[in-house]
Amino acid sequence: MDKIDVGPQGFLYPMPMTLVGADLEAGPNFMAVAWVNRCQVHPPRLVVALNTAHATNAGIHQHGEFSVCIPSIGQVAVTDWCGMASARRGVDKAAPFAIFRGSLEHAPMISECPLCLECRVHERLDLGSHELFVADIAGTWTEKRFLRPDGKPDIAELRPFTLTMPDNRYWAVGECLGDAWSIGRTLTEA
Amino acid sequence: MDKIDVGPQGFLYPMPMTLVGADLEAGPNFMAVAWVNRCQVHPPRLVVALNTAHATNAGIHQHGEFSVCIPSIGQVAVTDWCGMASARRGVDKAAPFAIFRGSLEHAPMISECPLCLECRVHERLDLGSHELFVADIAGTWTEKRFLRPDGKPDIAELRPFTLTMPDNRYWAVGECLGDAWSIGRTLTEA
Repeated sequence: MDKIDVGPQGFLYPMPMTLVGADLEAGPNFMAVAWVNRCQVHPPRLVVALNTAHATNAGIHQHGEFSVCIPSIGQVAVTDWCGMASARRGVDKAAPFAIFRGSLEHAPMISECPLCLECRVHERLDLGSHELFVADIAGTWTEKRFLRPDGKPDIAELRPFTLTMPDNRYWAVGECLGDAWSIGRTLTEA
Repeated sequence: MDKIDVGPQGFLYPMPMTLVGADLEAGPNFMAVAWVNRCQVHPPRLVVALNTAHATNAGIHQHGEFSVCIPSIGQVAVTDWCGMASARRGVDKAAPFAIFRGSLEHAPMISECPLCLECRVHERLDLGSHELFVADIAGTWTEKRFLRPDGKPDIAELRPFTLTMPDNRYWAVGECLGDAWSIGRTLTEA
């Protein structure tokens, strides 16, 4: 067998790139986060993993609310900047953005992002260096121009991007490979 | 403001597509899972969300071990098939694959997948219809041909793919948009 073990620091390929918004003492703040995904349908929830060293965590602890904003490929540089600049060192990481709010008081969202999720913390799980926030999705904010005629978000208009680690690169979404819960029907049962 | 709230069933765009392996009473089994991501560096951990109705969950409960295998774009149809066929209805979902094992006894992995993670459950979180498994990554199995000269996995060789919901489509990875923790330096501070 040609398989080799390259150690326990394996990664998922690729990960969705987002900006997580929270209200800090100094005001709204956004950090770059790729360790996030959906985790339940009813009620709709997502889970995000954050290093406890981040300023964002304190804001989420205080208010129990945050946002997950999906930037588009035109926002790669500013997203990366949000992953390098530090609110703890006094940088105003809301400054590049127009901010709006939905139904939650402390889930600042970015107008320039084509899709933003408002989140209310359901449960927190302490893992040591990181903590998981499992959150109810309170709203999904977008614009009509990003929706298909059937009302579903159109990825061709959203133009999200992904991150790979440990090579640390951003990637656009490529060609469509087929429909889920469908293309597998072409297989005869093995 | 042009922003509209399309409800709480918002999704991340796009999500990494994987096959989660577990040992069931009937033998090894693989299910299609997109709700998974990394959640810690030290120790390295990932989190996966599974509907409790799946046969896979019982295997993970019993053994406390599972795998996360990353298929490549040539495996789109069989991956989708694993998301439709049901072990509960007697389908042998290991049949299409050559299976190998690493250091864990109950983390079956797929030889045809370019990268597989062996996982040991650290903590389980019950959310209702779904449960979260937070797991230590015990090993990352790949082949030398999938590694770059610097030893990091080469996404161009892995050729992973992603899923979007609710439009339910699979996507290849597209063009490289730049280096993370780097491209943002081009921005003057806002």
